[in-house]
Amino acid sequence: MPRIMQETSKRHLYKGKTIGFVPTMGALHSGHLSLVKRAKSENDIVVVSIFVNPLQFGPGEDFEKYPRDVEKDMEKLRDVDADILFVPENKNLCPEGFATHFIIEGISDRLCGAFRPGHFSGVATVVCKLFNIVRPVRAYFGQKDFQQTVVIGRMVEDLNMDIEVVTCPTVRESDGLAMSSRNVYLRGEERTAATVLYKAISLSREMIEAGVSGPEEVKARLNEALRSERLVSEIQYAGVYDPKTLLDLNEFKRYNLVAGAIRIGGTRLIDNVLVEAVKARQ
Amino acid sequence: MPRIMQETSKRHLYKGKTIGFVPTMGALHSGHLSLVKRAKSENDIVVVSIFVNPLQFGPGEDFEKYPRDVEKDMEKLRDVDADILFVPENKNLCPEGFATHFIIEGISDRLCGAFRPGHFSGVATVVCKLFNIVRPVRAYFGQKDFQQTVVIGRMVEDLNMDIEVVTCPTVRESDGLAMSSRNVYLRGEERTAATVLYKAISLSREMIEAGVSGPEEVKARLNEALRSERLVSEIQYAGVYDPKTLLDLNEFKRYNLVAGAIRIGGTRLIDNVLVEAVKARQ
Repeated sequence: MPRIMQETSKRHLYKGKTIGFVPTMGALHSGHLSLVKRAKSENDIVVVSIFVNPLQFGPGEDFEKYPRDVEKDMEKLRDVDADILFVPENKNLCPEGFATHFIIEGISDRLCGAFRPGHFSGVATVVCKLFNIVRPVRAYFGQKDFQQTVVIGRMVEDLNMDIEVVTCPTVRESDGLAMSSRNVYLRGEERTAATVLYKAISLSREMIEAGVSGPEEVKARLNEALRSERLVSEIQYAGVYDPKTLLDLNEFKRYNLVAGAIRIGGTRLIDNVLVEAVKARQ
Repeated sequence: MPRIMQETSKRHLYKGKTIGFVPTMGALHSGHLSLVKRAKSENDIVVVSIFVNPLQFGPGEDFEKYPRDVEKDMEKLRDVDADILFVPENKNLCPEGFATHFIIEGISDRLCGAFRPGHFSGVATVVCKLFNIVRPVRAYFGQKDFQQTVVIGRMVEDLNMDIEVVTCPTVRESDGLAMSSRNVYLRGEERTAATVLYKAISLSREMIEAGVSGPEEVKARLNEALRSERLVSEIQYAGVYDPKTLLDLNEFKRYNLVAGAIRIGGTRLIDNVLVEAVKARQ
C-alpha cells in the first residue's frame, strides 16, 4: 500500500501538482481539520495519513488504548474535502527486518523528550518514511506539539528534504483547553481541572507582555498556578524556553516559548504559547 | 550549493528525465568509472558527487590524508561523459547545528562496522542527504564495499526511498587486487603482498564450488592463507557470511559472502566475493 500511495503522488507531481500533507494518528478533532483546511488553501492535492505509530509510544504508554475511529475520521475528512486518505498498516510500514532509526541530537532529549525516551526518534523515523511515500511540497503540524515541529524541522533541514514544514495555531475548546485526541481520557471534574494548563500559560504570557523582569519569575508563577489545582498529579516541566534549542532561558529573547506538561489523574497534557518579549526587555 | 543541485535535479525530473547517481569520495579509479559507465547506459542524466565525508571517518582514521585530486577526477569524468559533477563543501552539507544521525541496527555493527564504530551511520546519513539533493532513480555502488551496499539498501527500503540501489562488480588490477583509492598507501613490497587477500578469497571460492563440507573449513583455510603472508599485520575478519544479515554462516546458503579485512603495514584492505554453493550442498 505504501507503494500505491507513492505512485499516486508521483503521478500528481509529474503533472506539476503540489501536494500538501497532514500526517495524523487519527481520532481527528478540529485541530487536525484546521490543518487540512490550511493545506487545501495552499496546495492542489491534500493527503491526510492516519497511522498510530508504535515507534513513538514508550513501554507503559497508551498505544493500546489510543482512540481509533477511522470511519468517523473519514466522514470528517470528507466534510473538509481532503483529497486522499492514506492509512498504512504497521506490517507494511515497519515490516520484519526494519532496522533504521534516527537520532536528532539535543532537541529530542529536552522537554517532552526527557519524559518520553525514544519518542521523537520514533516520530522522526515514521514522518521521514511518510514524507518519502507521500512526497509533499508542504507538511502541516499543530503548534500544540511544538517540540515535534522543531524536531521535524531539524530533520528536514539536516537531510535536505525538499519540504516546507508549516506550523499552524493550536485550536482550543471554548474554555481554552488545547484540542487533543487524548482529552477523551479526562473524566468529570478532571476535564474542568485540565483548563489550568492554558490558564497558567496565559498568565505567563501576560507577565511577559507586561514587562516582567525575567524568565525565572514567570516560571515560578507558572508552577505555582499549576500546583494550585489539586487534580494536577504531576508537573513534568513548566517554564520559559528558547523556541529553537528548547533550552531553559535565563533572560528573554525576542520570541519565548512558554510550555508545560502535566498530568491530571492518569492523563498527560501539554500546551504552549510563543510570546514576543516587550521591546524594552529584549 | 546543495540547493542549486536539488533545483537542477528537479528540473530534469519534471521533464521526465531519469537521473543515475554515483556518490564517491573522489580519487577516482577504474572502479568508480565503471559505475559511471553503467549509470550512463541506464539513465538520461548521470550525476557524480565527490565528498570526503567526515562523518564516516573515526578518530585516528585517514580523513586528513585521504587522497584528493578534483582536477584529475574531472578529467576522468569528462572522458566517461558524466553529465553533472557535484562537489559539496562540508560547511554546506553539515552546517552548524546539524543534529540528525541514523542508526541501522545490526548490519552496521558487523564485519567492518565492528572495527569502525559509527562508520556506517556516517555513510547512511550523508548518502541519505545526497539522495535527497540529487534525487536519483538509480544509485550505483561497487561490490568491494559490500557492507555499504547492504546498509544503504536497508536504509532505502526502511525509509521508503524511491531509489534503486545498483551494486556493480568489483574492478581489479591485473594481479587481482581490488581497486581502491587507498591502494596508493601501499609501498614497494606491500603492494605485492596485498594480492594475498583476493588470492585467499579466490581459494575459498574454489573450495565452495568444489563442494567442501561447510563454512568452517573454508574459514580456517582462508585465515591460514592470509597468515602465510608475513606483511599481513592484522586480520580484522575473514570468513563466510550471510550476504543479507552479514552474520557468520554455519552452513552454506544458496549465496555465500566470502569476505575479509586485513592490514598490510598501516593500510587497511577489504575484499569479498559472492559464491553460489554447489546444488548438492544447499
